[in-house]
Amino acid sequence: MKLGVLGTGTVGRTIATKLVDLGHEVTMGSRTADNEDAAEWAADAGRTAAHGTFADAASFGELVVNCTAGAGSLDALRAAGEENLAGKVLLDVANPLDFSQGMPPSLFVSNTDSLGEQIQRALPDARVVKALNTMNREVMVDPARIPGDHNVFVCGDDEAAKGDVRALLQSFGWPEGSIIDLGGLSSARGTESYLPLWLRLMGALGTGDFNIKVVR
Amino acid sequence: MKLGVLGTGTVGRTIATKLVDLGHEVTMGSRTADNEDAAEWAADAGRTAAHGTFADAASFGELVVNCTAGAGSLDALRAAGEENLAGKVLLDVANPLDFSQGMPPSLFVSNTDSLGEQIQRALPDARVVKALNTMNREVMVDPARIPGDHNVFVCGDDEAAKGDVRALLQSFGWPEGSIIDLGGLSSARGTESYLPLWLRLMGALGTGDFNIKVVR
Repeated sequence: MKLGVLGTGTVGRTIATKLVDLGHEVTMGSRTADNEDAAEWAADAGRTAAHGTFADAASFGELVVNCTAGAGSLDALRAAGEENLAGKVLLDVANPLDFSQGMPPSLFVSNTDSLGEQIQRALPDARVVKALNTMNREVMVDPARIPGDHNVFVCGDDEAAKGDVRALLQSFGWPEGSIIDLGGLSSARGTESYLPLWLRLMGALGTGDFNIKVVR
Repeated sequence: MKLGVLGTGTVGRTIATKLVDLGHEVTMGSRTADNEDAAEWAADAGRTAAHGTFADAASFGELVVNCTAGAGSLDALRAAGEENLAGKVLLDVANPLDFSQGMPPSLFVSNTDSLGEQIQRALPDARVVKALNTMNREVMVDPARIPGDHNVFVCGDDEAAKGDVRALLQSFGWPEGSIIDLGGLSSARGTESYLPLWLRLMGALGTGDFNIKVVR
């Protein structure tokens, strides 16, 4: 499958590498066509990896993953181009973290709105699914590094798009039963609002290598 | 031990009953001295149960539990009286839920502040500990109803007060290892911000009878 990965940070590179390892063709997109991190990643990742602008990655991908920093996501997606994302599944893993007041970060959108919904409103023809934003990047692509059962959440208004994301998550190693569908995209308010707790847990545990399991 | 329970709703009655069952003397406080729910609870609960105003309950308790609805907590605590709570552990289990816009509720304070911190600022001489606000009332007092391991969080600036709350939680049935200390009271921003996710999970699971386990 052809995928576009928007963002050249650690999350973008981790997910893009996983996708290449799974046999997909991946174009990593960034603000400029000559981003050094993206070029280095593509050179390391091999023949099925390429890099370019946000628009290049978005037009290349049949499914596109937003791995940009939350504060830059809307600009990045506008640069990617509404027409390049129309009708496509856009997996949004970003969090609306505001680091401007120091650590721990606060959220620049929360409570009665979410970054996922902002992105959907900015790109009404994209099929936005929020997922994977409740854990660190290593756990995203290798859930087995955390022992036992634990969960990943999917939120979105398009059922078929959520099905595509569920399949992608399963290919990452998430057991089908570990994937909890929280409903429409407004439930991204829930998963994004969990970040303040995740950050406090990281502080208390001294590691980001954890996840939560819903027990019932 | 003598405890004051502020609030006559389902959470207050559940916690107050548990405390009586554990052998404590409990006064349930409400806005008025003749609250019918409180009178009925006290009559049912037996000889070690009493009821009165918020101030009666606060002055009676060596440890006081805020079980009022979040939207009314500050008013209730002001009515309870700063002098009646000075130096005492105030276990705050309330959540800042705003039901004015329908379901699911939003939060009337979040992100860069929390209800727990608002309460501490309103009552600087109380020793506020936030705990138990991340689950339904049945799980609060009977964690074993959820199978296996799962967690409860404590947040507060006073270490000794957190120790008293940990001991109370253990008496409720929470294993020592299930109690995660998230640090200072500002970490209540994390546990209160989890509520939107809890509410979405309740919707997705069709039950409030669940909790989360931190897996690492």
